[in-house]
Amino acid sequence: MHAVILSIGDELALGQTLDTNSAWLAARLAEHGIGCRYHQTLADDRAAVTEAITRAADDAPLVLITGGLGPTEDDLTRDALADALGKPLILDEPSLARIEAMFARRGRPMAQRNRVQAMHPATTRVIPNPNGTAPGIRARLRRATLFVMPGVPSEMRAMFKDAVAPELDPAAGQRGVILTATVNTFGRGESDVAQLLAELMDRDRNPKVGTTVTDGLITVRIRSEAAEHDAARQALDETLHEVERRLAPFAFGRDDRTLEEAVVALLRAQGLALTTAESCTGGLVAKLVTDVPGSSEVFAGGYVCYANAAKQAMLGVDAGLLAAEGAVSQPVAEQLARGALARCPGASVALAVTGIAGPGGGTHDKPVGTVYVALASADAADQAETLPLRLTGNRQTIRDRTAKTALQMLRLHLLGESLDPLRPAPAPRHA
Amino acid sequence: MHAVILSIGDELALGQTLDTNSAWLAARLAEHGIGCRYHQTLADDRAAVTEAITRAADDAPLVLITGGLGPTEDDLTRDALADALGKPLILDEPSLARIEAMFARRGRPMAQRNRVQAMHPATTRVIPNPNGTAPGIRARLRRATLFVMPGVPSEMRAMFKDAVAPELDPAAGQRGVILTATVNTFGRGESDVAQLLAELMDRDRNPKVGTTVTDGLITVRIRSEAAEHDAARQALDETLHEVERRLAPFAFGRDDRTLEEAVVALLRAQGLALTTAESCTGGLVAKLVTDVPGSSEVFAGGYVCYANAAKQAMLGVDAGLLAAEGAVSQPVAEQLARGALARCPGASVALAVTGIAGPGGGTHDKPVGTVYVALASADAADQAETLPLRLTGNRQTIRDRTAKTALQMLRLHLLGESLDPLRPAPAPRHA
Repeated sequence: MHAVILSIGDELALGQTLDTNSAWLAARLAEHGIGCRYHQTLADDRAAVTEAITRAADDAPLVLITGGLGPTEDDLTRDALADALGKPLILDEPSLARIEAMFARRGRPMAQRNRVQAMHPATTRVIPNPNGTAPGIRARLRRATLFVMPGVPSEMRAMFKDAVAPELDPAAGQRGVILTATVNTFGRGESDVAQLLAELMDRDRNPKVGTTVTDGLITVRIRSEAAEHDAARQALDETLHEVERRLAPFAFGRDDRTLEEAVVALLRAQGLALTTAESCTGGLVAKLVTDVPGSSEVFAGGYVCYANAAKQAMLGVDAGLLAAEGAVSQPVAEQLARGALARCPGASVALAVTGIAGPGGGTHDKPVGTVYVALASADAADQAETLPLRLTGNRQTIRDRTAKTALQMLRLHLLGESLDPLRPAPAPRHA
Repeated sequence: MHAVILSIGDELALGQTLDTNSAWLAARLAEHGIGCRYHQTLADDRAAVTEAITRAADDAPLVLITGGLGPTEDDLTRDALADALGKPLILDEPSLARIEAMFARRGRPMAQRNRVQAMHPATTRVIPNPNGTAPGIRARLRRATLFVMPGVPSEMRAMFKDAVAPELDPAAGQRGVILTATVNTFGRGESDVAQLLAELMDRDRNPKVGTTVTDGLITVRIRSEAAEHDAARQALDETLHEVERRLAPFAFGRDDRTLEEAVVALLRAQGLALTTAESCTGGLVAKLVTDVPGSSEVFAGGYVCYANAAKQAMLGVDAGLLAAEGAVSQPVAEQLARGALARCPGASVALAVTGIAGPGGGTHDKPVGTVYVALASADAADQAETLPLRLTGNRQTIRDRTAKTALQMLRLHLLGESLDPLRPAPAPRHA
């Protein structure tokens, strides 16, 4: 079974407000084993909405519509539905009484405008809205069932759960179930991941496996379809484990799990506390780690040392070394890491970052995107591992990828894995 | 003139990822006076995308398409466009060279899969993508012009500005013009802002004025509509100035201007350099300031001192004071600010934050959301101003609002404005 989702509103069509309803509804439909042919966002235009409703009823047996049920003149979904059905609007007395009662509870008289919210096309059924003044509407058009819900997300969600979802369930056995999961990875390119996943990504495979790149993270999406829930679950789990096996150790978690959560969990399990020394990331690594609730147990403290004077005063970086090698260099990164480890009370492992995030500051030898990440550990305090990076993109991208690389470097270190796959290949020689 | 926007991706159709591209594009089109008939979100299904492209070209003379241009097998927009046009895919040698060069710069060999990204349907034109491996495509289908862009928002936005927007401008004079602007504010509630704006927010006013709350920032949106560009511009500017006048000094900038950019600009203008001492925000204030290009001139360095031991060792906070008052207290906030100012080389003004971001750590007297922000300045180094906050929300919200309050506090201080409106009202007395 397939569905179409329509969301109606000038502010949505104009891009002034982001439509979150369609994605939410699509995710709920997937849980019921219902795929979504498309979502469509339209302005409050009576003729256009009428046409879209008619098309949608041809395109899918289930049509979910949100928005345009308010009391104002630009709320036209009710009229458009009546046009599509070829029926007049009629008054629903219980709805009118409910709306009047709602205004009475707020101590206000009901505006005449709100009366229209109790109207619905003849032959359709009203869906009560306990959370607002706009009732929903259930309609049949040709072979399709249509549900019209308010655009306010909290009212829409409650109405979906109470009135729409129960109608989807009885037939669930006849349709099949779609279960989804995601595996999050960082540190390899999308084409590398695709090569590792190989035949798992075949288009006609079930479960289906696809990848998405968001802010440098590669998310592997798995979608398992089967007649029965248990079969869908088992197939999903098998593919999930196979994906994780092939992408280890770069896969750091499933679904909403973040890289920083994975790092905090490892630090806690090993009884370690982190300190950070950041130049070009300016506090971003510390910010990400402390985003995680409970991170205070595993985060000892951090230094943001942008200027050379700060690197010397805060962490004892050698002035001669800064002059000879430059602030963006492997030995300075190592001194920053060792300095933070030595000075921050309670720290047992240190991450340091120095680099050129741009847009200014690049040179021929050290262009924007040149970054060094160093890691020092209390069990080998006079040594530090360093990762040289050559990143592309704007300032924000370079800072973001640097911070994520630092966290993945720490994670691989804590797991005892090699850092080599994070290293860029040798630079091509200039002819 | 009207347009249709299509966004392609399994993760979007399934509701796993929210489509932000369509709203962004619709807003840009509105600035060019182009209305949007609809946006449609589709799965990576070759036949369905082919059909949607064909429909869209019938529905509007301009079609913008994002997503499905990646290197993997589930990226099918290229093939679907070729099907809709009835043309084969051909190789664009300059694109291939550009993609190979991009991999070389990153020090990696190009995977064979990426070769497909240099393909485009015969009769179409390639749009270079300086920010990623997926070039865009410009095509003609019947009377419509189609632009296909990558789904990665940063790449899509840059491509729209460079390659699509310039093609939209020549005809602008023939249409009505819609110009929009926004004014960004922080530190007052939405109803306060609405009271200050009063009759400017009347529904039938032109320019139309509305407010949106996003992450504690209140954005005032202004939308000016007129037959001619100059008339729309003049009306927009008049309303813009009036909005800014009423919301001063809390309005910190227009359109994409961020609070941290406003702070960096003020620090630079006054020749000052900031240092930060952060407990519950864990580096977020430093991260925000250093997000701004060129911030190295005005950011001296920062300390993230989570644990009490770190507060003492890094910034000399008095152990007795910590024991007597607790880490989350006005005197500790002041010592952190004065300590950072004294120890960070080159710093002339300091922001310090200590608080309970939760979910753990709250007590009856100091519940989650209790925060102190302190500001110390080199011209009055033995004094510090402190702002006590009582915030609600989850850990992320509390950290975010704390950091923004600290930045707005610094901004008002640099402007010589009173901090009083940032202070919470006195707590209600317990009976």
